[in-house]
Amino acid sequence: MKVIENNVCAPEGFKALGKTVGIKKSGKPDFAVIFSEITGDAAAVYTSNKVKGAPLTVTKNHLKDGKAQAIIINSGIANVCTGEKGIKDAGDIAKAVGKELKISAKDVLVASTGLIGAFLPMDRIKKGIKGIKNELSKNNKAAEAILTTDTVKKEIAVKVDNFTIGAIAKGSGMVHPNMATMLCFITTDAEIEQKKLKSYLKNSVNKSFNMTSVDMDTSTSDMAVIMANGIAGKVDEKKFQEVLDYICIELAKKIAKDGEGTTKLIEVEVKNAKTKKDAEKIAKAIISSNLVKCAVFGNDPNWGRIICAMGNAGVDFNENMVDMYFGNQNIVKKGVAVGFNYEKVKDIIKKDTLKITIDLNDGKENSTAFGCDMTLEYIKINALYTT
Amino acid sequence: MKVIENNVCAPEGFKALGKTVGIKKSGKPDFAVIFSEITGDAAAVYTSNKVKGAPLTVTKNHLKDGKAQAIIINSGIANVCTGEKGIKDAGDIAKAVGKELKISAKDVLVASTGLIGAFLPMDRIKKGIKGIKNELSKNNKAAEAILTTDTVKKEIAVKVDNFTIGAIAKGSGMVHPNMATMLCFITTDAEIEQKKLKSYLKNSVNKSFNMTSVDMDTSTSDMAVIMANGIAGKVDEKKFQEVLDYICIELAKKIAKDGEGTTKLIEVEVKNAKTKKDAEKIAKAIISSNLVKCAVFGNDPNWGRIICAMGNAGVDFNENMVDMYFGNQNIVKKGVAVGFNYEKVKDIIKKDTLKITIDLNDGKENSTAFGCDMTLEYIKINALYTT
Repeated sequence: MKVIENNVCAPEGFKALGKTVGIKKSGKPDFAVIFSEITGDAAAVYTSNKVKGAPLTVTKNHLKDGKAQAIIINSGIANVCTGEKGIKDAGDIAKAVGKELKISAKDVLVASTGLIGAFLPMDRIKKGIKGIKNELSKNNKAAEAILTTDTVKKEIAVKVDNFTIGAIAKGSGMVHPNMATMLCFITTDAEIEQKKLKSYLKNSVNKSFNMTSVDMDTSTSDMAVIMANGIAGKVDEKKFQEVLDYICIELAKKIAKDGEGTTKLIEVEVKNAKTKKDAEKIAKAIISSNLVKCAVFGNDPNWGRIICAMGNAGVDFNENMVDMYFGNQNIVKKGVAVGFNYEKVKDIIKKDTLKITIDLNDGKENSTAFGCDMTLEYIKINALYTT
Repeated sequence: MKVIENNVCAPEGFKALGKTVGIKKSGKPDFAVIFSEITGDAAAVYTSNKVKGAPLTVTKNHLKDGKAQAIIINSGIANVCTGEKGIKDAGDIAKAVGKELKISAKDVLVASTGLIGAFLPMDRIKKGIKGIKNELSKNNKAAEAILTTDTVKKEIAVKVDNFTIGAIAKGSGMVHPNMATMLCFITTDAEIEQKKLKSYLKNSVNKSFNMTSVDMDTSTSDMAVIMANGIAGKVDEKKFQEVLDYICIELAKKIAKDGEGTTKLIEVEVKNAKTKKDAEKIAKAIISSNLVKCAVFGNDPNWGRIICAMGNAGVDFNENMVDMYFGNQNIVKKGVAVGFNYEKVKDIIKKDTLKITIDLNDGKENSTAFGCDMTLEYIKINALYTT
């Protein structure tokens, strides 16, 4: 397995584009297309938010046959809470893109991210769609064009034996995926049967995006899509799942690390729980706690807040069996504080990634969750800088 | 019904004290006793956090017979994650207080609030307990002595016909009560059968503290206790429930308004839901959303974040039926923004209390939740100022 410098264009037969069509006021890229030379199998998972964006309705509909050849993504406006007109707009975009790329509109998936409650500027988007066929390339701005408040692009590609997987993602605020994710688009030239493709995607998403939180607000626009065009032929599917896990976990970490206003990534591993679900719930409760996140921002080893968050996870565990580590430093043993070196632990927290390990000493199941600290900048971004 | 300037000492037969015994570094009052001249019925509800403070174990045990005559509360150290020693300490305090007041230790309830993971300074506390009998009075510092990061004391008393109810509460951070509350101590001279007393308390707590959130972190030390000494004799119990509701809701508002770093109280009323539970879940989801709280801090009528939070409440509702109001200004009609006067709405949000009304137009059940905005000061208190 080799990580290569590329993204969704790394697998054979995939091209993309990213450009400015005028949705964002900033003039930054806001329109992306991912295209496969041939139709292939595709699968997606979606947000669990009861309120779903119009693009999700259209994408779900177009994916009924498990096939897709292109994905169009816009940033700046999410096309959510836009009623019937929003759904028509998303469908019209798929049609226009299909016409331009000379493929069926049904093979075009649609995703949007940005402001909720506004309509898409359809005139500008349709103008931007003109001529896209010639703008597709292996080297482009697709990863930039899907970002909103993100400060860095999130892309990855891995080459393995006879196949390649590539991906781009976005996510910085309103990130608390549940049954789905922020936006993530994955391509591969591996040949995988559609049903299996979907199950591999779900497996990987459960270990990565679904274990990530920036602020506990699950977005209305979350979506993770994988397209497999099969050009590379049959592959070792166990290895495929492993690589897909790796890709999704790396992107989840990139998203957590780029959480709005964050200064560091927090990785929480819960070990030796009775059930996998227990381990997941406790890990997620810790990375979701505002008070834990504030303490980490303040470089404060406030383990009492971690125990409190664990207690709110809805899991039955024995707090008198809990061991806790910050990095390699043991903080709590059997539920009670050990006399740890405060300055040493403070230095560990000060780094740009903090690993917290919780050993429940109560079973054999493990899980890891990804989050970030909560900072003054987070409040500024979400309170003082808006509208 | 008449609100009077007093607290737990307002009902007949109750006295209290608040003083400094040296648990808080600040030297502020940190030790309180509430005492009834005669033993009475008592009931309590507790935190749903899996990790429970040692005082809760002792109080639950002492309340098995439904009787109590005194409550001792300390602030500064929560006596949580302190193992067997913590439970022994809490029991020893009840014994020492019982001895001093010449009542059974079993009739003394114990509550603590403050830092998790530290042991109580038993020598200082025992020294403080000496002579408390003579320090009890109708006019004292009990309401101050139970505070931690609170900036104002929370007390209330209501006189009704032949009976009186009084209460004190604390809560500012780690406030997201569930099946219980922060600390709240209620006294009454009404004569109410213990089982009914407990059910009245639960009813009121469900409408007040359980509908309040500062930061989604349910504390390990939450407890609401009511003592009824019966001196005033039988009362109109419908009226009793009404007054108890009023008292708990007023204290819940005081707690939300004094949330760590907050600049304003947010009151969210969800109307016309299919079920009471639906209304409660949606109201709580809105006041719990960091993004909504940040928007309110920024005086930004960002209704998209409210719709997003509603969608995460785990309730099935039709977003195309939703009407939304900020104060008396209609913002959203049938799920789509109406052309509202932005400056007028901004002025409404700028006030120290913001009322948001959501009409689901889908049933007849209503619920109101109480929260606060999320501010730069919240982060400072919880990150920069700690340890």
